[in-house]
Amino acid sequence: MADDVTGAEALVRAAAHSGAEVCFANPGTTEMPLVAALDRVPGVRAVLGLHENVCTGAADGYARITGKGALTLLHLGPGLANGLANLHNARRANTPVVNVVGDHTSWHLPYDAPLTSDIAALAATVGTVHTVTDRASIAEATRTAFDDAHRLLGVSTVIVPADHQQQSLPEEPAKPASAPSRASVGSDAVENVAARLRAAGSRAVVLLGGNALSRAGQEAAGRIAAKTGITLYSETFPARAERGGGLPDIDRLPYFPETAAAVLREAAAVVVAGAEDPIAYFGYEGVPSVLTRPGTLVRLARPHEDAEEALLELADLLGGVAPGGPGPAAEPPGSGEPLSGRAIGQVVASCLPENAIVSVEGGTSGYPFFTASASAARHTVLTNTGGAIGQGLPCALGAAIAAPDRPVVALQSDGSGLYTAQALWTMSRERANVVVLVAANHTYQVLRTELGRHGNDDFGTQAAALTSLGDPHVDWVALAAAFGVPAVRATRAGDLRRTFTDAVSSGGPHLIEMAL
Amino acid sequence: MADDVTGAEALVRAAAHSGAEVCFANPGTTEMPLVAALDRVPGVRAVLGLHENVCTGAADGYARITGKGALTLLHLGPGLANGLANLHNARRANTPVVNVVGDHTSWHLPYDAPLTSDIAALAATVGTVHTVTDRASIAEATRTAFDDAHRLLGVSTVIVPADHQQQSLPEEPAKPASAPSRASVGSDAVENVAARLRAAGSRAVVLLGGNALSRAGQEAAGRIAAKTGITLYSETFPARAERGGGLPDIDRLPYFPETAAAVLREAAAVVVAGAEDPIAYFGYEGVPSVLTRPGTLVRLARPHEDAEEALLELADLLGGVAPGGPGPAAEPPGSGEPLSGRAIGQVVASCLPENAIVSVEGGTSGYPFFTASASAARHTVLTNTGGAIGQGLPCALGAAIAAPDRPVVALQSDGSGLYTAQALWTMSRERANVVVLVAANHTYQVLRTELGRHGNDDFGTQAAALTSLGDPHVDWVALAAAFGVPAVRATRAGDLRRTFTDAVSSGGPHLIEMAL
Repeated sequence: MADDVTGAEALVRAAAHSGAEVCFANPGTTEMPLVAALDRVPGVRAVLGLHENVCTGAADGYARITGKGALTLLHLGPGLANGLANLHNARRANTPVVNVVGDHTSWHLPYDAPLTSDIAALAATVGTVHTVTDRASIAEATRTAFDDAHRLLGVSTVIVPADHQQQSLPEEPAKPASAPSRASVGSDAVENVAARLRAAGSRAVVLLGGNALSRAGQEAAGRIAAKTGITLYSETFPARAERGGGLPDIDRLPYFPETAAAVLREAAAVVVAGAEDPIAYFGYEGVPSVLTRPGTLVRLARPHEDAEEALLELADLLGGVAPGGPGPAAEPPGSGEPLSGRAIGQVVASCLPENAIVSVEGGTSGYPFFTASASAARHTVLTNTGGAIGQGLPCALGAAIAAPDRPVVALQSDGSGLYTAQALWTMSRERANVVVLVAANHTYQVLRTELGRHGNDDFGTQAAALTSLGDPHVDWVALAAAFGVPAVRATRAGDLRRTFTDAVSSGGPHLIEMAL
Repeated sequence: MADDVTGAEALVRAAAHSGAEVCFANPGTTEMPLVAALDRVPGVRAVLGLHENVCTGAADGYARITGKGALTLLHLGPGLANGLANLHNARRANTPVVNVVGDHTSWHLPYDAPLTSDIAALAATVGTVHTVTDRASIAEATRTAFDDAHRLLGVSTVIVPADHQQQSLPEEPAKPASAPSRASVGSDAVENVAARLRAAGSRAVVLLGGNALSRAGQEAAGRIAAKTGITLYSETFPARAERGGGLPDIDRLPYFPETAAAVLREAAAVVVAGAEDPIAYFGYEGVPSVLTRPGTLVRLARPHEDAEEALLELADLLGGVAPGGPGPAAEPPGSGEPLSGRAIGQVVASCLPENAIVSVEGGTSGYPFFTASASAARHTVLTNTGGAIGQGLPCALGAAIAAPDRPVVALQSDGSGLYTAQALWTMSRERANVVVLVAANHTYQVLRTELGRHGNDDFGTQAAALTSLGDPHVDWVALAAAFGVPAVRATRAGDLRRTFTDAVSSGGPHLIEMAL
């Protein structure tokens, strides 16, 4: 006869059976049975975040690297609310994430205690929701949440009242969730795209996203481009893109809509391969939302479909030829050159260790790094897919936990980094192999640009104050030290080259404040 | 003929007409017209927070002190999501807060751009929602949101697409919102309570909350108690309570339900005066949710009603007599005594400057301070009403901006303080007169207690790790320095007495890490 197990134990077991090995957690009173179960049921390691947005961002980064669903444990509505911003980014990255959120004991809910809130409404804004209504259904709800996350490539939340976590029932046979998968694109669709590309000649663009940005996907796209002369772009903010190590130099679609529309305007066909249809990031007066001309958009694969496989088929159909590699790297800046976005991008690209993971958040050094990195060692880039800032450091943390044998670099702007700086503490606790490079210009620079775009070139006092992180300058070296991460400040290209190389070679978390 | 003004200008003007003087803001691209309008329309000062939960918590603290509706400016769904935890606390505090949240230009919304999300669904979890659908309705939507917040004593959110912010129309005549107000309790209700109290004799309890915790409210309650021998309690987590300076020593209803039920069990009548009905904070197996015996609960005033006025009437009806003051303060700890919760409470109470505001978050020093503070100088206490942690530092910030001439003390536990430590930066920028006292035990101590209550006295490795903030210890002195706040560490009662007194007398923000 099966032993009795608590609902919490059944949940942890179901998660482990569905592939969970790590749980990014910040639990509270209503999750204490689950905390106890993490010790009683083998297989799931808990990683504490000091804020839930660290947990959810780390889960996103972890899943992007492992390709498996990631697990979080959050406390009630406020805990989930704290983690929603990075769940929004995970949703936009098509990342499978399962949140387990405790709730009050079911019979206590009607009394509207201080911590009661509408957890399901919050969870529904980022994905599917499963509310456990009795002990018997816990394992199945957990399995279904993993199924949802894997099948829809998205976020799913299980809400578990504390009494159902505590109650015991005989152990059930384990049923694992389906593995994450991408639907195949039919041959008809591939042949249709081939016909469109043949008709367009060199006047076509292929926009790569999703798993088209794997090595195999980019190599296939490179073969097609070499054969046909078409132009390749990566989506502007990929969840995960391989780069360097001889891959073709595929530019990102420009961020601002006028520029992006200009590069798409001339195309007779714009093929999306794993990317969303190209639209403007924000709507601006007088600028169309849709960046393609009518009739030119062709869909090879949607973001959740297997774009890599479709590109391989397409390359075979079109008879692609081997592409040339990227051009030589730009001359790196001299040691005495003051740091700028360009200098940072070039130094980091030229010193990047083999097989690194680079989590990029913010434009100051992010765009220049991308420009410089085509000729770098092979690496994986993770970007902020949903625009909710505070994603870069947690994502780097999760990536480091997913791949402890790979060096991780967080190329981080300061404004967004300050949203989730607590991630540094977990990096320290977990001895995560992350080098954090903070581009410290003490400004929300993108907002100054946007103020200008809205016709406000001459900032008033309040606009200047609301877009400045000066007065006082944040001291990132002290901030890192507060969280147990050794840190230094670099002001010139030579400093950065030396400190970055040292940090990479010594392992464990390090932070370098790059003074701009 | 009226001049044309943009929608953003109309919004700022409407907010100013409804009493807004400060806007706690973290704007983004979709709020740029509003940022520009803050410079063009006089009367509303912007205060930048580095994270939205700083903005919303500061708004709550500001409104608790001024008694007026507070204003926030947040960026899209993720910005609102980031601030929801402290909006949850504001909702539970019955604090009037109006959030202005930008959205994509209305014609861009259907394209589901990366930053698109269901803002209204998020906002509805904490209060009323007004979505602006054209330029012409902006001022009215803003006024209505202030009306809601003032009338319902709660949170209201205005969602404003960027195009409506930009469009110009002739200026409209200003219509201010109603002022915040509390509904009067009818004389019948007061007479009914008087009859119940006369029948119960000394076997009654009055539980004070809301504006019953004003000086006048507590003095009236004290007169009643002196006359009848009944017992007075404050709600466990008041939004705002006056204390010290000769007020009666009114204990807080105990936090744990068994203890709270024990003190209410003997009462023939439990009168709630501005407090919620007494229920357990969490539901525990075998412990009832309702803390009062059947038939004993009597409602004098609900939390949004005028409990102060009702208590004054009640005292007149019952013929109250002047109460005695609190007993003498406990002997303060000797200078060499190591810091403990008790020692901290006694030192802070004994050194508290006249007319201070004390924002309390966390139990480690919060409960002992309350025990010691009845005999302290007159002060105002603000507590975490909703249990979403990360409230104390932002609330202290908002209070300091509301009352720049009053000393503010943030008595803060470390675990919750780490949620919104970015508030220190705004304290520095605003030269806020706050002394932050961090009780650093490097543990989520309440969770260790709760694990024990769930029968897990022998923590496993993961339970220990998930409730520990050690490995590494956070260095609060470095953290404060990173954000521009001078800081020191105290380990003994004498250190704390000296450093606290120095910090209070020198003004501006200071932080003292109290090593436990």
